[in-house]
Amino acid sequence: MAADRFLTRRRKLLAKIRAEKLDALLVTSEVNVTYLTGFTGDSSYLLLGPDVETLISDTRYDQQIQEECPGIETYIRDSSEKIDVSTGKVVGKANLRKVGFESETTSHAQWERFQKHAEQVDWVATSQLVEKLRMVKDASEVAEIRRAVELAERAFRMMVASLHPNMTEREASFELEDAIRRFGGEGVAFHSIVAVGDRAALPHYYPGDRRIAEADFLLVDWGALSPGGYRSDLTRVITTGRLSPKLEKVYKVVLSAQEAAIAAMKPGAACKDVDAVAREIIKAAGFGNNFGHGLGHGIGLEIHEEPRMSPISEDVLQPGMVVTVEPGIYLPGWGGVRIEDDVLITKAGCEVLTSVPKQLDEIPTA
Amino acid sequence: MAADRFLTRRRKLLAKIRAEKLDALLVTSEVNVTYLTGFTGDSSYLLLGPDVETLISDTRYDQQIQEECPGIETYIRDSSEKIDVSTGKVVGKANLRKVGFESETTSHAQWERFQKHAEQVDWVATSQLVEKLRMVKDASEVAEIRRAVELAERAFRMMVASLHPNMTEREASFELEDAIRRFGGEGVAFHSIVAVGDRAALPHYYPGDRRIAEADFLLVDWGALSPGGYRSDLTRVITTGRLSPKLEKVYKVVLSAQEAAIAAMKPGAACKDVDAVAREIIKAAGFGNNFGHGLGHGIGLEIHEEPRMSPISEDVLQPGMVVTVEPGIYLPGWGGVRIEDDVLITKAGCEVLTSVPKQLDEIPTA
Repeated sequence: MAADRFLTRRRKLLAKIRAEKLDALLVTSEVNVTYLTGFTGDSSYLLLGPDVETLISDTRYDQQIQEECPGIETYIRDSSEKIDVSTGKVVGKANLRKVGFESETTSHAQWERFQKHAEQVDWVATSQLVEKLRMVKDASEVAEIRRAVELAERAFRMMVASLHPNMTEREASFELEDAIRRFGGEGVAFHSIVAVGDRAALPHYYPGDRRIAEADFLLVDWGALSPGGYRSDLTRVITTGRLSPKLEKVYKVVLSAQEAAIAAMKPGAACKDVDAVAREIIKAAGFGNNFGHGLGHGIGLEIHEEPRMSPISEDVLQPGMVVTVEPGIYLPGWGGVRIEDDVLITKAGCEVLTSVPKQLDEIPTA
Repeated sequence: MAADRFLTRRRKLLAKIRAEKLDALLVTSEVNVTYLTGFTGDSSYLLLGPDVETLISDTRYDQQIQEECPGIETYIRDSSEKIDVSTGKVVGKANLRKVGFESETTSHAQWERFQKHAEQVDWVATSQLVEKLRMVKDASEVAEIRRAVELAERAFRMMVASLHPNMTEREASFELEDAIRRFGGEGVAFHSIVAVGDRAALPHYYPGDRRIAEADFLLVDWGALSPGGYRSDLTRVITTGRLSPKLEKVYKVVLSAQEAAIAAMKPGAACKDVDAVAREIIKAAGFGNNFGHGLGHGIGLEIHEEPRMSPISEDVLQPGMVVTVEPGIYLPGWGGVRIEDDVLITKAGCEVLTSVPKQLDEIPTA
């Protein structure tokens, strides 16, 4: 059953490999190898083509591969052989002439070594063949993301319940992580952001030693890693004091931008158009220079995946995609507001997977 | 004071850039940018040469850069401009002709985009210019690693004290992480390995649902991340039942291999020779096919850094290097033993930074 899932993915990739007129694709991205085989280790490549399917790994992973992907053909090197040498041997033995490599994740130096160790081969740069498959989630992946959302939301409720004025950002972030694990998650999907007051103006802040009581609000950007390796990603603002007129104003703009963007999400919508829906509302409110990042991104095995929702995205929404929608307004010295949900594109439109309240009269107060 | 440290590093790199006859080096590796500037965000490049020093980043990080590296010249893009376009602009404005790029960490696709956006430039592949600087730690870095070791060791004692027969591997790994944070660490240095019995035969196992009581011993490979971003890396075996003759035999071989390797570590020693010292002892004991990885690796801002101690390493030990020494014997179906310490190379020889007991009559029993 589980093996079938990986077989289906490899079959889909094979069709793309044939369409690109390649004899094989060398999959070097660790997460792509996991997606295609179920093997969760690192330092391993998959060579896949109509006449070849070999997982190139090393002795550290021999037993693990037998357990995680039974039946797959392997080439196991020991520590006296570098992986590009192994790759040259496997490619040579399979007698391939035209082999694709993943140009976005293969380093320039590794590409030169592939050429050296398999010089008879025409190495063809490919871009995002596996990533474009990964954009559209299958049923098992959507179920894993729902689990990651559920874990994140339960943990958030526990963290909010635990907040007290003297608690630091760092302690609050640990509460989130502890709760995710208590409920059966693997851990956090990424380093949580807990930012008090003006720290919320830093979109990628790491939690520090600010105490909750030092401002009237905090911003929390967090997610959970499901047991199967999938991720959720949410952001909420929590008030801890008086709701200031400025926070209320900024919050309303961000929320209306986010709701309008979600309303525009459906199969066939261009990602840059959805971004523009939110961006125009923020611009019209006078905050055009205070929203310096894209509207959202795909989530899955990685926290940032295709598609991207940004002014320069060329992606188009399709059923099965799961993306974040996270407009923000950042005012240096004062703080920031970002509201983020995870949205599944469906045949009929979209489904918001996240359910932590976000209306102004519902936002948590601690 | 802190700024001076980064300035010193950039000066050392500048000397290398001059020696390579480059007009500048484009530093794209995130950790290398952090090492050279103190900036801890991502998606940012440093262009450094005799006549140019610009941090290329985006609006998300504008305020953070001002706080973390005040005074550094920046080029800040917004979300409508890709980083390779920004890079082309900065390189063009500086009027450079020969620019190095980091070939080990720059993707083939990114290299092609650099050529496109700065086609007047001769892009020269460089290898590990910054990584070779990072191999030799300065005093502040050694202090940070000592702190990471101390955090890991205190956490280990707490975890051992908490063990009970019904506890799972996963729960034990959470105990380690909780304790590291309680003592002021940022978190774990890497995903801890807690492996009961035969699971210890998998050198890169993730903790699962095995319970402590299911075998007579467990293997724990863990480390801490210091507040300043440096890492420690240790491995110990803990007995939980009878010390079997087989475990005793395997343990003694690994320990003597590890102690002999440490005794051979001093400035001027070739890393592959140190690896061979341990490997020969394991081979002579009849386990030559059961030690499938290198002897050790540098630690620092990353968990795996230069130098590498392996049969194919070309590195030579120098004062200021900090490396792990971690021979192992893995017997599928039975389990494995690995003993790992962190060792600082000194002018006189070396100093073992870690102090968790490892003699057979001292190893923890839970």
